[in-house]
Amino acid sequence: MDVDESLLIDRNPPPDGVPERLAAQLRFVAEADKLKTILRASPLAAADRRENDAEHSWHLALMVILLAEYADEPIDVGHAIKLVVIHDLVEIYAGDSPVFAPDAADDQAEREAAAATRLFGLLPPDQAASMRALWDEFESGATPEARFGKAMDRLEPMLLNWLNGGGTWGMPGATEATVRAREAGVVAGSTSLGSVTSLLVDEGLRRGWIRPAAVAQD
Amino acid sequence: MDVDESLLIDRNPPPDGVPERLAAQLRFVAEADKLKTILRASPLAAADRRENDAEHSWHLALMVILLAEYADEPIDVGHAIKLVVIHDLVEIYAGDSPVFAPDAADDQAEREAAAATRLFGLLPPDQAASMRALWDEFESGATPEARFGKAMDRLEPMLLNWLNGGGTWGMPGATEATVRAREAGVVAGSTSLGSVTSLLVDEGLRRGWIRPAAVAQD
Repeated sequence: MDVDESLLIDRNPPPDGVPERLAAQLRFVAEADKLKTILRASPLAAADRRENDAEHSWHLALMVILLAEYADEPIDVGHAIKLVVIHDLVEIYAGDSPVFAPDAADDQAEREAAAATRLFGLLPPDQAASMRALWDEFESGATPEARFGKAMDRLEPMLLNWLNGGGTWGMPGATEATVRAREAGVVAGSTSLGSVTSLLVDEGLRRGWIRPAAVAQD
Repeated sequence: MDVDESLLIDRNPPPDGVPERLAAQLRFVAEADKLKTILRASPLAAADRRENDAEHSWHLALMVILLAEYADEPIDVGHAIKLVVIHDLVEIYAGDSPVFAPDAADDQAEREAAAATRLFGLLPPDQAASMRALWDEFESGATPEARFGKAMDRLEPMLLNWLNGGGTWGMPGATEATVRAREAGVVAGSTSLGSVTSLLVDEGLRRGWIRPAAVAQD
């Protein structure tokens, strides 16, 4: 676990004269740069390297704009974009938890909650509360915007896997069963996009990019 | 000039059964992955490498959420986020144009307009038009949301330069005059954030991170 307690802003604190509230906000904006260094398991389609959380979050925001028409319930597009822009910020301190890693940490929820307290605590109290509320909303999946945002969060890596002819579908913990469980997260936000992920998985199985459940333990 | 005409989706086209409209949208979503490979001149704060356009666009979206209170005019935050999420997409085909490069291409505007036609043309016609309208709005700076989005687009690399103790302020074309010209783009969207960029530039000059105009040609 990476437990570097130093803030990026500490290298070069804002000059004298910056109002206290804005200085706190810039401290957070600077610290957020670290999201660009948190690697996900997913490979890019456009280059031979893994995707980072900032790139992933941007891609989800674009997908919300383009695919909102497929949400099962009416959504506030601007609000849904906010949710996906901030949804992975806590991984700056908690790290990424690959979904198909067989040894996924049991304490992921606690680590992420602690990270949220630490990270959002850099902000002025009112914004710490509103950012925490956005993150909680996404995590809970309790609103139409959160459900659609989560659908994008499932669909994007499936699309990258498809474009790569396998990607994380080749990880030890990935089988038809676990891949279909991820697909369910798309269906929960969008029946029509869920149908497409089902086609991708069907065809991925046919092409040998996903292991059938029956050979999972081989 | 990189003129690879192939689309990322051509590697593995969507399986049979995906509706035509959605297939076009997925073609665009896949092609957008290329934005993660377009490098800007700006260095990250969190790692020793240059920033890419997708990371940059994500950072602007986060900044819109956190700093909207400093907009000089009332803005629709969701709309402003949309603008910054899509504002650099044309660079997938047109490339990045570093602001402090002394030999900035004269034909940047034409190249970007051609790239917009090609890229947005991958979408169904109604979405090609709405995406083009968002991009034109940002480019024109004609709305409060576009002005604030552009302010973030100027502020973010200034903050990265500050955190790096120089960054692109050390490029051959950067002098107090050209750096202050960029600062003007922040002021145009936010007087109070403009005041802060002015403090950063004043202090950057004092520390020798920015060349005074007088020695620009040395």
